[in-house]
Amino acid sequence: MARVDLNADMGESFGPWPMGNDAALLEVITSANIACGAHAGDPDVMAETMTLAARHNVGIGAHPGFSDLQGFGRRRMHVPDASLGNLVRYQVAASVGMARAAGGRVRHVKLHGAMANMAAENEAMARVAYEAALSVDPDLIVMVLAGTAQEAAARSLGCLWAGEIFADRAYEDDATLVDRSRDGAVIHDPEEAAARVVEMVQADAIIARSGKQIPAAIDTICLHGDGKTALEIARTVRDRLTAAGVTLQAFDGRRD
Amino acid sequence: MARVDLNADMGESFGPWPMGNDAALLEVITSANIACGAHAGDPDVMAETMTLAARHNVGIGAHPGFSDLQGFGRRRMHVPDASLGNLVRYQVAASVGMARAAGGRVRHVKLHGAMANMAAENEAMARVAYEAALSVDPDLIVMVLAGTAQEAAARSLGCLWAGEIFADRAYEDDATLVDRSRDGAVIHDPEEAAARVVEMVQADAIIARSGKQIPAAIDTICLHGDGKTALEIARTVRDRLTAAGVTLQAFDGRRD
Amino acid sequence: MARVDLNADMGESFGPWPMGNDAALLEVITSANIACGAHAGDPDVMAETMTLAARHNVGIGAHPGFSDLQGFGRRRMHVPDASLGNLVRYQVAASVGMARAAGGRVRHVKLHGAMANMAAENEAMARVAYEAALSVDPDLIVMVLAGTAQEAAARSLGCLWAGEIFADRAYEDDATLVDRSRDGAVIHDPEEAAARVVEMVQADAIIARSGKQIPAAIDTICLHGDGKTALEIARTVRDRLTAAGVTLQAFDGRRD
Amino acid sequence: MARVDLNADMGESFGPWPMGNDAALLEVITSANIACGAHAGDPDVMAETMTLAARHNVGIGAHPGFSDLQGFGRRRMHVPDASLGNLVRYQVAASVGMARAAGGRVRHVKLHGAMANMAAENEAMARVAYEAALSVDPDLIVMVLAGTAQEAAARSLGCLWAGEIFADRAYEDDATLVDRSRDGAVIHDPEEAAARVVEMVQADAIIARSGKQIPAAIDTICLHGDGKTALEIARTVRDRLTAAGVTLQAFDGRRD
Repeated sequence: MARVDLNADMGESFGPWPMGNDAALLEVITSANIACGAHAGDPDVMAETMTLAARHNVGIGAHPGFSDLQGFGRRRMHVPDASLGNLVRYQVAASVGMARAAGGRVRHVKLHGAMANMAAENEAMARVAYEAALSVDPDLIVMVLAGTAQEAAARSLGCLWAGEIFADRAYEDDATLVDRSRDGAVIHDPEEAAARVVEMVQADAIIARSGKQIPAAIDTICLHGDGKTALEIARTVRDRLTAAGVTLQAFDGRRD
Repeated sequence: MARVDLNADMGESFGPWPMGNDAALLEVITSANIACGAHAGDPDVMAETMTLAARHNVGIGAHPGFSDLQGFGRRRMHVPDASLGNLVRYQVAASVGMARAAGGRVRHVKLHGAMANMAAENEAMARVAYEAALSVDPDLIVMVLAGTAQEAAARSLGCLWAGEIFADRAYEDDATLVDRSRDGAVIHDPEEAAARVVEMVQADAIIARSGKQIPAAIDTICLHGDGKTALEIARTVRDRLTAAGVTLQAFDGRRD
Repeated sequence: MARVDLNADMGESFGPWPMGNDAALLEVITSANIACGAHAGDPDVMAETMTLAARHNVGIGAHPGFSDLQGFGRRRMHVPDASLGNLVRYQVAASVGMARAAGGRVRHVKLHGAMANMAAENEAMARVAYEAALSVDPDLIVMVLAGTAQEAAARSLGCLWAGEIFADRAYEDDATLVDRSRDGAVIHDPEEAAARVVEMVQADAIIARSGKQIPAAIDTICLHGDGKTALEIARTVRDRLTAAGVTLQAFDGRRD
Repeated sequence: MARVDLNADMGESFGPWPMGNDAALLEVITSANIACGAHAGDPDVMAETMTLAARHNVGIGAHPGFSDLQGFGRRRMHVPDASLGNLVRYQVAASVGMARAAGGRVRHVKLHGAMANMAAENEAMARVAYEAALSVDPDLIVMVLAGTAQEAAARSLGCLWAGEIFADRAYEDDATLVDRSRDGAVIHDPEEAAARVVEMVQADAIIARSGKQIPAAIDTICLHGDGKTALEIARTVRDRLTAAGVTLQAFDGRRD
């Protein structure tokens, strides 16, 4: 029987500035990627978000990014490998201890923003980041963008990993995302997004907009809480997956 | 047989800016208080310092302070209790995970700068900070300024703690430090500092400049690496304690 | 004929995090206090806000605060005088140049948050901050909380200043604000707030909740854009002042 | 008669961390590039450095860089044009006002670190940065790396500019620097560096290590204060230029 995880980024508020719909998303998802204080989040936000996630029995993930609060970790930075490793290590370490203090446990790690984009293109960089995370806890599950250099890095490390696809993005025939500048790159209709997700989960494959099926490790679906229809998409994806008999549950990770 | 620990702050460099004589101090001390990235230290500095400390078999301590890099955590900030707790929790958590990744283990926690000064005057504040640290690891040993509200807080929490005195500061009859504006407040002569320390460790008491003995839990001696004679004081204290038959070893903490 | 200025804080977004209703407030106010990047605001936010303010012919003010983004400058920090001066100088300097580049001009300076609260109690501290601002441009108008140590500092410096009262806060007989913990401390009803403001502006006096009139330099009314009724209060204050024949215009400053 | 300027970066301390030999360099140079608080420098350091520079009649320059304190502005960041402009504008504005308050005046602007390197390769980016600086003060002189895209950008803007070469770096035949990994890329011998500089200033040309002369606008020589022989090189360059009859004086900028 099919099973999949639903994940979303959260804990992205900072100081006096709220962001996102964490409370609503926690009713939908099974894994939360929680910012660690570098690109968003502060110790208060982390403590509160982790407590909420633990209370909802949602899997807690560390979500490290570049130290660039103004740019929200979305601006590419060229950081030497050793520094990149320590930056990830620090954020994952802070998350692991904060989660324990909040009565929870960090189960997975997912890279954020520009760091994630760069790692999706650069296997060596992804390895540096993942090795750093695993140096804090070798049992962490690395969440990777299915079919990218992130996945290759996780496979080569022999660690536990989980493959992720997007609910609201169209794919090309080579499993990359359709460029945002093109029509149909982003899916705004909840039913369309949900139908695609159900189809991909049941097929164990990414289905490109051409219709081509690309076999992929689909362990988790990335959802969002902001934007006009994001929350509606998230809820519809959950409902349609449930209706299709798919079990929604945090991933345990694979090692193949 | 008498036994005492020698501690010093380190890992206080940041980015391109070095600080201190960590390598030299690691040959002298038995416990290192390592900055956690808020008032000093960055992930690279922490990783390097913890690796060095572990290699020297020096006890590793988390040394949290206010988030005030420019002020080096020496400027008093009035932070609500919940935020203070989370600030300490975050730094201790980061330290615990970074130390594990470096092949070491955080054994103790010591507050830095203005946070330490405020906690030495305010038992409730000290409790908030210590409870936060212990929420990450209940076996941490809290290093307190002997005879202050820090000690009272640790005693009331029932946690493991260790009492600290200064090698280079004169004490008043009430066990507070002689104000820095007064003659003789700071001891610059290595032999004078060392003789005082040996006497206090053997007497299990702070010896005020009046000669008055104030019974105190002297588990560790605070040393420094900067300043003209600091390193010389550190080495002389070590030598004279050893010559007096005092065992130099990281504390195990007391719970009384 | 009576004349008064209406001011509000703005430009308090940061990076990906929006804050406030700047666009709506700019339709109401005659002076804008724009954050300078220390407690809120970043160079992008400053540039955009100053351009908007200049376009609306709203007087531009620098609004410096403590370097405490997470605490939004609302946490008291004890900063040595020289550093406080340089901190204010830096923010005012940045504002003056950014405003010029945006086609506007910084006309006034108003302290933010904890820095403002401390300066309202401590004339010497207020002088340090104001002297620093005036060292960048001696023609700046210092906006002070009427009747506080801020006003005393401005008077003693002989600089241009403007006195400020709150539209939505009740006053005690000694011209201090009624503590927020007491009933009626904050006024939520737009008509009540507006009637009070009209009465105070016409009387050139703060009117305490006892009814006592305290003569005061009322050059500007502080409005807000957040909170349930803040924007409604702002608009009603503007309408009722206009209806009462009061001219709404940025202050020119007084020197008495 | 030949004339040239000698420049160096300074004001690169931060909080408790000193950097460089500013006092010694100020005896040698005629223009100082002073950090603006983003990659180094803080308001206290800026105020002190500007006061010293003004007292030595050394030309004051704003030295903006990326907001990356840990990386000292040396890590490449990909910042959208509008944000890059505002980042430079903010730092130049702060410098202009701080200098005025210190009794001096910002005469020039020079980009720092990775921002400078990227602008040396990318004329469009250099234009964005320079236009932002000039929006604060159109009379600023832009200091450019001679022969790079920085120079092209300044020429195309029609602003005042000054061309810079390095005293301690060897050049290739295309006027680029010899890669640091190659032998002889960095010149450590003071007399060799000084002889080269005198020759290049007199020839109005960069002299490549092949001996090839590349005509260049040599208005200023970049010196350093750190490293083993840097200060010795700086002093020797000054002495040999003076002995050769070259006038040492801050540049006035060219517009051709």
